[in-house]
Amino acid sequence: MAQDDRPLVLVLNGPNLNLLGTREPEVYGADTLDDIAELMEDHARVLGLRIDLRQSNHEGHLIDWLHEAQARGCKAVILNPGGFTHTSVALHDAVKGIVTPVIEVHLSNPHAREAFRHKSFVSPVARGTIAGFGAKGYMLALDAAAAI
Amino acid sequence: MAQDDRPLVLVLNGPNLNLLGTREPEVYGADTLDDIAELMEDHARVLGLRIDLRQSNHEGHLIDWLHEAQARGCKAVILNPGGFTHTSVALHDAVKGIVTPVIEVHLSNPHAREAFRHKSFVSPVARGTIAGFGAKGYMLALDAAAAI
Amino acid sequence: MAQDDRPLVLVLNGPNLNLLGTREPEVYGADTLDDIAELMEDHARVLGLRIDLRQSNHEGHLIDWLHEAQARGCKAVILNPGGFTHTSVALHDAVKGIVTPVIEVHLSNPHAREAFRHKSFVSPVARGTIAGFGAKGYMLALDAAAAI
Amino acid sequence: MAQDDRPLVLVLNGPNLNLLGTREPEVYGADTLDDIAELMEDHARVLGLRIDLRQSNHEGHLIDWLHEAQARGCKAVILNPGGFTHTSVALHDAVKGIVTPVIEVHLSNPHAREAFRHKSFVSPVARGTIAGFGAKGYMLALDAAAAI
Amino acid sequence: MAQDDRPLVLVLNGPNLNLLGTREPEVYGADTLDDIAELMEDHARVLGLRIDLRQSNHEGHLIDWLHEAQARGCKAVILNPGGFTHTSVALHDAVKGIVTPVIEVHLSNPHAREAFRHKSFVSPVARGTIAGFGAKGYMLALDAAAAI
Amino acid sequence: MAQDDRPLVLVLNGPNLNLLGTREPEVYGADTLDDIAELMEDHARVLGLRIDLRQSNHEGHLIDWLHEAQARGCKAVILNPGGFTHTSVALHDAVKGIVTPVIEVHLSNPHAREAFRHKSFVSPVARGTIAGFGAKGYMLALDAAAAI
Amino acid sequence: MAQDDRPLVLVLNGPNLNLLGTREPEVYGADTLDDIAELMEDHARVLGLRIDLRQSNHEGHLIDWLHEAQARGCKAVILNPGGFTHTSVALHDAVKGIVTPVIEVHLSNPHAREAFRHKSFVSPVARGTIAGFGAKGYMLALDAAAAI
Amino acid sequence: MAQDDRPLVLVLNGPNLNLLGTREPEVYGADTLDDIAELMEDHARVLGLRIDLRQSNHEGHLIDWLHEAQARGCKAVILNPGGFTHTSVALHDAVKGIVTPVIEVHLSNPHAREAFRHKSFVSPVARGTIAGFGAKGYMLALDAAAAI
Amino acid sequence: MAQDDRPLVLVLNGPNLNLLGTREPEVYGADTLDDIAELMEDHARVLGLRIDLRQSNHEGHLIDWLHEAQARGCKAVILNPGGFTHTSVALHDAVKGIVTPVIEVHLSNPHAREAFRHKSFVSPVARGTIAGFGAKGYMLALDAAAAI
Amino acid sequence: MAQDDRPLVLVLNGPNLNLLGTREPEVYGADTLDDIAELMEDHARVLGLRIDLRQSNHEGHLIDWLHEAQARGCKAVILNPGGFTHTSVALHDAVKGIVTPVIEVHLSNPHAREAFRHKSFVSPVARGTIAGFGAKGYMLALDAAAAI
Amino acid sequence: MAQDDRPLVLVLNGPNLNLLGTREPEVYGADTLDDIAELMEDHARVLGLRIDLRQSNHEGHLIDWLHEAQARGCKAVILNPGGFTHTSVALHDAVKGIVTPVIEVHLSNPHAREAFRHKSFVSPVARGTIAGFGAKGYMLALDAAAAI
Amino acid sequence: MAQDDRPLVLVLNGPNLNLLGTREPEVYGADTLDDIAELMEDHARVLGLRIDLRQSNHEGHLIDWLHEAQARGCKAVILNPGGFTHTSVALHDAVKGIVTPVIEVHLSNPHAREAFRHKSFVSPVARGTIAGFGAKGYMLALDAAAAI
Repeated sequence: MAQDDRPLVLVLNGPNLNLLGTREPEVYGADTLDDIAELMEDHARVLGLRIDLRQSNHEGHLIDWLHEAQARGCKAVILNPGGFTHTSVALHDAVKGIVTPVIEVHLSNPHAREAFRHKSFVSPVARGTIAGFGAKGYMLALDAAAAI
Repeated sequence: MAQDDRPLVLVLNGPNLNLLGTREPEVYGADTLDDIAELMEDHARVLGLRIDLRQSNHEGHLIDWLHEAQARGCKAVILNPGGFTHTSVALHDAVKGIVTPVIEVHLSNPHAREAFRHKSFVSPVARGTIAGFGAKGYMLALDAAAAI
Repeated sequence: MAQDDRPLVLVLNGPNLNLLGTREPEVYGADTLDDIAELMEDHARVLGLRIDLRQSNHEGHLIDWLHEAQARGCKAVILNPGGFTHTSVALHDAVKGIVTPVIEVHLSNPHAREAFRHKSFVSPVARGTIAGFGAKGYMLALDAAAAI
Repeated sequence: MAQDDRPLVLVLNGPNLNLLGTREPEVYGADTLDDIAELMEDHARVLGLRIDLRQSNHEGHLIDWLHEAQARGCKAVILNPGGFTHTSVALHDAVKGIVTPVIEVHLSNPHAREAFRHKSFVSPVARGTIAGFGAKGYMLALDAAAAI
Repeated sequence: MAQDDRPLVLVLNGPNLNLLGTREPEVYGADTLDDIAELMEDHARVLGLRIDLRQSNHEGHLIDWLHEAQARGCKAVILNPGGFTHTSVALHDAVKGIVTPVIEVHLSNPHAREAFRHKSFVSPVARGTIAGFGAKGYMLALDAAAAI
Repeated sequence: MAQDDRPLVLVLNGPNLNLLGTREPEVYGADTLDDIAELMEDHARVLGLRIDLRQSNHEGHLIDWLHEAQARGCKAVILNPGGFTHTSVALHDAVKGIVTPVIEVHLSNPHAREAFRHKSFVSPVARGTIAGFGAKGYMLALDAAAAI
Repeated sequence: MAQDDRPLVLVLNGPNLNLLGTREPEVYGADTLDDIAELMEDHARVLGLRIDLRQSNHEGHLIDWLHEAQARGCKAVILNPGGFTHTSVALHDAVKGIVTPVIEVHLSNPHAREAFRHKSFVSPVARGTIAGFGAKGYMLALDAAAAI
Repeated sequence: MAQDDRPLVLVLNGPNLNLLGTREPEVYGADTLDDIAELMEDHARVLGLRIDLRQSNHEGHLIDWLHEAQARGCKAVILNPGGFTHTSVALHDAVKGIVTPVIEVHLSNPHAREAFRHKSFVSPVARGTIAGFGAKGYMLALDAAAAI
Repeated sequence: MAQDDRPLVLVLNGPNLNLLGTREPEVYGADTLDDIAELMEDHARVLGLRIDLRQSNHEGHLIDWLHEAQARGCKAVILNPGGFTHTSVALHDAVKGIVTPVIEVHLSNPHAREAFRHKSFVSPVARGTIAGFGAKGYMLALDAAAAI
Repeated sequence: MAQDDRPLVLVLNGPNLNLLGTREPEVYGADTLDDIAELMEDHARVLGLRIDLRQSNHEGHLIDWLHEAQARGCKAVILNPGGFTHTSVALHDAVKGIVTPVIEVHLSNPHAREAFRHKSFVSPVARGTIAGFGAKGYMLALDAAAAI
Repeated sequence: MAQDDRPLVLVLNGPNLNLLGTREPEVYGADTLDDIAELMEDHARVLGLRIDLRQSNHEGHLIDWLHEAQARGCKAVILNPGGFTHTSVALHDAVKGIVTPVIEVHLSNPHAREAFRHKSFVSPVARGTIAGFGAKGYMLALDAAAAI
Repeated sequence: MAQDDRPLVLVLNGPNLNLLGTREPEVYGADTLDDIAELMEDHARVLGLRIDLRQSNHEGHLIDWLHEAQARGCKAVILNPGGFTHTSVALHDAVKGIVTPVIEVHLSNPHAREAFRHKSFVSPVARGTIAGFGAKGYMLALDAAAAI
């Protein structure tokens, strides 16, 4: 199908994001990950892109998928690393180790929360970071990906 | 079977706890994880509870299982996060993200060991913590679960 | 009387625990220290133990009583050191200086509170620690003492 | 004029941003602040907004302007605090002290630079943060403002 | 006597304040604690208050007295915690544990002295703090107490 | 006019204090700065003093005014440095560089708030500090100034 | 086959080492992991050893394999923990929990890189560490294993 | 009696020193406090001094006794502050607040033990410090006192 | 006039340097800023340079003037940043953002003073630093500027 | 003699290594430095190298010898800096200042010992590091030198 | 001569102690090192000991001499490490590496001086420490040596 | 000879400065130490001074020479302590222990380099510091010495 020719953006979501919509909605919003996927697909179509949204609670899967993004020649990766943001040197190395640009997204603003969320191992190697805009942040990230 | 009606307590064990009984017995005791499971099952029966004891060296499995505990309506989770205790923000988020009460158990007393074991990412979001009583601690945790 | 033959467990409570039931009940619960003493006496009887519950706002009294526990050949001490937990090297030395096993109890979970409550000078020398279960924690501590 | 009815977004730029286009172009890009203003005006028109872009090397002016944003009922403030990001409690208080939503923008990614740029006093009180996308980040911020 | 009807303010002084007038007069001034008591009694009379000034080198006494203040329905406590200011979590808990407002007073300015005097465990739970005005600070504290 | 002969006290207010009464009233109270000025003028008259209350969001103005206080032979300065309290070495130097006594005032108690508000660059060089009494603190500061 | 009798050395490689040869070759060299496996097999044959080289981006797999090394009676493990070096207490515990000697290898010198790479959780429990010699380091590690 | 004319040296011992001889003899030696008192009395007689040796687990008593030493015109105080060494600002102030010279003694060497024993609040204000010589240290301290 | 052809050196002085000669003369010397200007003008003439000496208590002015130095093609800037030295990232960025060489001067030696004066945000981006020589330091800085 | 044509490797040993074989043999092994020299000479001959092994307790000698290594065109330096590893910026500069490759060797694993041994000033500028293999480590270092 | 039979105590003095009597006499006293040597020789004779007092500004010499003390079978070493106290891991290792008991002496009390003097690398491995008694401290150290 | 009457300035250079001109010329410049000596001799002649330039890799020699400077009545010492700057308390004490003024010189700007070069033990006791001007800095130091 013609749709296959659109550049692909991998949308990777880290631990506990499968709980989205039920977990601490006052912090993370009421949208589920499926809601976000649907919104992103619509928005991607407008931008001439297609997305592949995934979620895993395993750090190793996120790293595998980042490698896959490069192997498949993806246009960009949108990455919400969840709790791994603050602890994973391995994820830092994976983002740095591929040439595919990675855009970091956070639903809430980590700097407005506990001190252990103020450090990001992903930010120093990401193309850019978008934080605090809830589900809307994924759309802004798609816009940023389209402009690369 | 009538037994199925007893409220379920998930007993989750983190990395290296499969080595129990052989690894540093002067620190962790001589009971294997199977010994503990057997003791807990007996004790659970007395308390009108049933348990499902699991172990994994994968952080992602522990997070998956915590989510499952909520989905299955478990009465409580007894969690010995092993080495993840001190490093995993993702586990912190998983415990915080479910309403099922989580009871943290440690065989030895982390504060009597290396400095990097003095910080727990699980304690701030656990219902309570029991540490230093060896295998007996799991029984105390069951008592605490029964009293919730 | 026959009752005197039961092994004695000293239950020592540190500063401000006399306010229990009135002070920040959302943190510490609604039970008074007298309520807890009564519950413990009942539970001790079941376990074949007897208790002697005391409270003081003076660090020196707690140290004196720890020494007394050893002198009187107590089976165990259950110690809720209150605010001294986080600051008292002298209490650390007292617990370490006696052979009587000491079980540390906290009503609330210190790790879920201010940073200055995350350090315990008692934990490294206690037999074990039970935190976050409110008044129920004292009963669990008695169970632990009985099992020594 | 009809144009006046469009909601106003104040775009405030902190110290040294007047050098944009000449100062360390490999870090900050080749666009001048005037270039960015022009691009934003075009983009704002599309979104049904109007902007008022200003720059000052004086912390006091930025604070005055934040107060003005609230007094004039602006829809949002887009704030690139430059070097004040990392040092100004006063700016933190100003952002927190107004109800007008403030969107923080950085041309480069502070976390990829010196350690003293890793702390932001603005992030904890901003609605959201966009960093690392160069001049494009201002456009994303306008999109975010439009969506409020 | 009619005097008994005036609201009572407890004035509690911590360790070494009994040496006042002789100990490091260039830091603490030449007034003795008795001098201060006399000045306060005069000033209290003007304000329609009465005071009860005490001093102890025992942390436990200060905690006991804070509890007593609440039990007796005192209007306020004026507390100069001396060296306990910087080390006592127990005092912090005592002040927080009562509803009686506590006003913290220091003769000298702790921030102008050694680094270990820069932290106060009392300030975060006190109604207010007055430091650096010598004996005059007690009078200001009485004024503040009268205004509650 | 006879009024000119009364000793002058400069009352200097730092950033965001112009928002007083509207900004976070649960922290800073409902009085505006004009309300406080009026109360202080009345109270100053009683004490035989006169005041000149100013506010600026510019650190430089506060420093200029401190120098002016000395040049004009003011009796004292009452200084609420707002957010500059925690960051400004320049303000520290200005207070230290003049002989006019400076009294530091804070509406709320910085030690009960975020950690970055626990350090004061003004306290070590101020004559004294009054914090946590809201608008009443300015009156106590005037009393302290009168007693110098 | 006779070859089976040679003592086995497990060669475990952590996250992102599958990218070897393509990822930052100026830091990690141009050899792929397959190249290294081949070189090691040749060198092992000379030393009378055989190797089994594996790689995973999953921390859990590395831990599983370390346990397997002990279960299978391996002569030694050569472990390049990649980014887990600096963050994994679980890996520390796994190495400490087995009696099989573990030799830590790094292609580059972590101390010549970012500060977060200066801490190793593996070094304190490894038999020895070899860092900075690129692919040659694996051969030196084999020599060291042979000498155990 | 003629003995009364000999200058008095107060020998003050802090918490847990009453356990001397029984508590961790490998650290603190086998002499009891009574043994030390006897040895000191003999040695004092040789030096033309007399001693008054006391022990308390109450910080307040040590402070009271330091004040008493000055009031009674003692020649010197020999102080083993035990666990208070590392935590008590109040004791620091008491030693600093009297003119009587204070000699700090420790049986073991605090610097060879846990990190929290490396800080002494008494050393900066003591005339001198003697540590690590066991009971012999008290005799050396008497010699030092005699030489003042 | 012929004098205009001499290369210009901007001599910028930060907060409180207008008090020079009166403020803490034991630290900063007895010369006023006017005295220094006069001495510099004489010395500049000898070196074939001319100077323009300015002072401001506003961080923004110093930044504006640094930009002006580049715009006017100055040979060098001599900058005494006063208290901004230790706190201003904005000044750091301004010095780094221009190509005009900047020579940092301090009258006293910051490293011999309070700890908060040990960090300089200007030193890392200055051409060189001269500290501790009082007014003479400005002359040495001129010599250094002449040699560029 | 023909032997002179073999490339020279300087083997430099820092403070206290002359005590090898007698000092803490459980940490450093039973081989003396002479034993190691003999083993190295044999091994060097096999590799076509020759060695010159020296030891000094003087930091200055080690620096002199590093300079000499470059002046004499040595193939490599094998350096066991002993206690200077953790404290000597001068040694860091010496290693960095020569082009001769330097291989750092430690008999024991510094990361398994006191915290002050976890920092190495030599590692960041060494070609590679070998630690924890006892005397065998010198042989591995020779192998590494041969492979340069 | 008969004198040779007396046990030898090496008295080692570190950097700048040759300036004794002239350098900061208010800190270090008026006695020269020769004065101290003479006093010690007299006192040693009384104790049946002989001394050999040396001084060097070279860390290496102190280490050499410590080794010599062991080789010559000295009874003890009295060591005033001067400025090396706070920085020398090599000296720490030397003291730990010999069985000869080492007594650490300081003329002044390091804890009453700059923060960088609060850490001692010698204390944790010394038999005992004597500080703050000026030249008298050397005599006390001899007494301690005699009692070993 | 008449030349002997000129006041002497000792110019002392620490470790690795003998490599000047060859070591990292992009950091330290192309001049050798001999070049600098020659330039200084010429410049000293103009100023009516004479110099004696020395270099050593031994900390002890620098200390010996500082003492010698005072003994010989030198006018000043110009000291480039190299890597000892950041680690040597002994050098700090030597500079503080003599009355001869010491001027600290660095070729490069330590604050623009690694964090461990940001601390100077010499600066707090030096008359003044000149850093970042390369060889020219020695000439400025001579000027400063002449002006003492």
